[in-house]
Amino acid sequence: MQIYINGKAARQNGDNMDRFSIAVAQSGGPTAAVNSSLAGVFRAASLCPAIDNIYGAINGIEGMIGDELADLRRIITSDEDISLLRTTPSTLLGSCRYKLPPKEQSGNDYIKIVNTLDKHNIKALFYIGGIGSMDAVVKLDEYFRAVGKDIRVIGIPKSSDNDIPVTDHCPGFGSAAKYAAATIQEITRDSRVYSTQSITVIETMGSRTGWLAASSCTLHANGESAPHLIYIPEAGFSDEKYLHDTAEMVKHYRAVITAVSEGVCGSEKSAAEHLERITAERFGCKVRSVKLNVMQRCSSHISSLTDLDEAYDIGAAALDAANRGESGVMMAFRRIPGEQYRIEIFTEPAVNCVGKIKHFPAEWINESKNGVTAEAVDYFLPLIKGEPVIRYENGIPVHFRATQ
Amino acid sequence: MQIYINGKAARQNGDNMDRFSIAVAQSGGPTAAVNSSLAGVFRAASLCPAIDNIYGAINGIEGMIGDELADLRRIITSDEDISLLRTTPSTLLGSCRYKLPPKEQSGNDYIKIVNTLDKHNIKALFYIGGIGSMDAVVKLDEYFRAVGKDIRVIGIPKSSDNDIPVTDHCPGFGSAAKYAAATIQEITRDSRVYSTQSITVIETMGSRTGWLAASSCTLHANGESAPHLIYIPEAGFSDEKYLHDTAEMVKHYRAVITAVSEGVCGSEKSAAEHLERITAERFGCKVRSVKLNVMQRCSSHISSLTDLDEAYDIGAAALDAANRGESGVMMAFRRIPGEQYRIEIFTEPAVNCVGKIKHFPAEWINESKNGVTAEAVDYFLPLIKGEPVIRYENGIPVHFRATQ
Repeated sequence: MQIYINGKAARQNGDNMDRFSIAVAQSGGPTAAVNSSLAGVFRAASLCPAIDNIYGAINGIEGMIGDELADLRRIITSDEDISLLRTTPSTLLGSCRYKLPPKEQSGNDYIKIVNTLDKHNIKALFYIGGIGSMDAVVKLDEYFRAVGKDIRVIGIPKSSDNDIPVTDHCPGFGSAAKYAAATIQEITRDSRVYSTQSITVIETMGSRTGWLAASSCTLHANGESAPHLIYIPEAGFSDEKYLHDTAEMVKHYRAVITAVSEGVCGSEKSAAEHLERITAERFGCKVRSVKLNVMQRCSSHISSLTDLDEAYDIGAAALDAANRGESGVMMAFRRIPGEQYRIEIFTEPAVNCVGKIKHFPAEWINESKNGVTAEAVDYFLPLIKGEPVIRYENGIPVHFRATQ
Repeated sequence: MQIYINGKAARQNGDNMDRFSIAVAQSGGPTAAVNSSLAGVFRAASLCPAIDNIYGAINGIEGMIGDELADLRRIITSDEDISLLRTTPSTLLGSCRYKLPPKEQSGNDYIKIVNTLDKHNIKALFYIGGIGSMDAVVKLDEYFRAVGKDIRVIGIPKSSDNDIPVTDHCPGFGSAAKYAAATIQEITRDSRVYSTQSITVIETMGSRTGWLAASSCTLHANGESAPHLIYIPEAGFSDEKYLHDTAEMVKHYRAVITAVSEGVCGSEKSAAEHLERITAERFGCKVRSVKLNVMQRCSSHISSLTDLDEAYDIGAAALDAANRGESGVMMAFRRIPGEQYRIEIFTEPAVNCVGKIKHFPAEWINESKNGVTAEAVDYFLPLIKGEPVIRYENGIPVHFRATQ
């Protein structure tokens, strides 16, 4: 990102005291939808006559502290740009893992942030991120109230792990789940070619929660028998139980496909490598492990249109919430009961999300603790539906890039 | 596959002695295009009035030896089926790694194969596979000639490694290259999010040849600076040279992206893990390694339309070659000189391919031995172009499946 502002507003504010600027920041691990939320905030803000500059903070809260802001109106200059940004993975504005200290311990960061906000007449800050980012939303909102600043802070959730409380699901998750399902289906085809027994263990993200591994159950809705076993942290795990289950599946399937959350064997072990080793020792057949690695969070070329649309909409709704005067809240989805999948967007005090984690529900784990129920399939299916139009150039998806 | 014939023809041959049946087999490692070649043979054969049954041998040569044949007309029953088969990865008919022994050592396999062929009145055998499969084409053709059987054997190349001699490129390679380019671009976006230095090493297939790692240079045609370094077996490799090159790149790029063939560090080491370790030791920054694993050969959802079309066409051309009386040949592509990318299909005695391997050309390696030339980009670009229409159901690509 080269178009920094560094203390100089790109355009002068008029004399109209009602006009103000806003800032957006992205934080935490990238997803395929986190730029779609940025596009949603940007688009809604650009339609709002009272809003002067739309700033992007470079590398999340670090950019707010260091006054490194990009003038987004100079970067996102057309509808075509917005469209490309929506299908570009990762964070246009960079990210950070910096945790804002409690204001009692270090007021310095807070003072710097207020200086940045004041200098650019920023009256609303949108923070797109995971649970850690909601902690920053709470702290900043409390600080601004304490020092009498009318600056609104709105959290916009994103997580390919789907582990943020309150919201029905997280923007970014549907695309990760779609990638995982499509890829596990392809690996299933690949695994079945030989006439001999094989066992393939596919590791998804999820160190503490099993949402993503569990979501591979959507393949069953399309008549696929794989994955034959699903292991998630919430169900408990033991090597012996796993080996027993696998022995059962070997009786039925020449190519056994197992999906596991990275966290099932504890944080110190790679689930994929550990299970590959003990499976090979026990069964002596062809055993493979595959990690979906960072691809599962950044594969925009097979993102879920539902996910990208919802990520965009929740970004736009965040601007509305700020305009309504809300602050210290996280935007969230609620599923409207009924046959048809529909969601509504609401706000929740961000403090209700901090320090919590949303686990995969115990009642959606099957009795054998090695799979999920039909209710889980119903939950996941709408989230992976729909395919965005991807623009290709030279056979490669085109990404929105502000700079090299 | 459940619709076996096992010694019983699905339909009786008429009295017309000119009518005959054919068999198709798939062998070696799966690719995203190997079913498109099967579809090409099938479609051309189904339009040929002289051809009675179209058999698929289950698990390659094993199915020919064991008389395990599928009646493809009962499995592929519509144009929709053909269309789906073209975008379904891996081998519909299964595969094998069985190497036919020299006929002097064991005539038994050959006698069984002839029995299978005779029983079903099969006069032409199409073998879709890699270099190893061309060995079978040569042996079978020689055997049939020696025993006075007029049975034609035609090899149809497939390789995601692109390592088969004679042909300009291999069906299956373009799709692997497209997947690798798209994925490396997405990993590049993902790697750039933080403000701190990082180095990402991405390992592609290619134990002996560097075609696939080299093909990631296509990203440069779209203005991407990554991959910043490319290492392939043909260029030679040393840890010290790699670390020196990486140190240079760290001066220029906050997120260094390196593509390596799995074979660069020798066959006993995982290139990704080895390079991750020595990079972390030397640079002390965030270092990641990513293996594109089996996904690079089976990701049909991002396959190259050029590749799928060519794979289909070379399958159809193989039927023509058999009808013309050719045997013991491999089908191959030749690039027609000119501004526009065009290919022609020709036949080459399969014996000219056996025991050989096509290396990445030395003259396309850059002077620093850590990248490729513009000529290489020109070679690769046409192969990854075009996107097939993928049918989705429930947000997941639909695969052609004869059975579960």
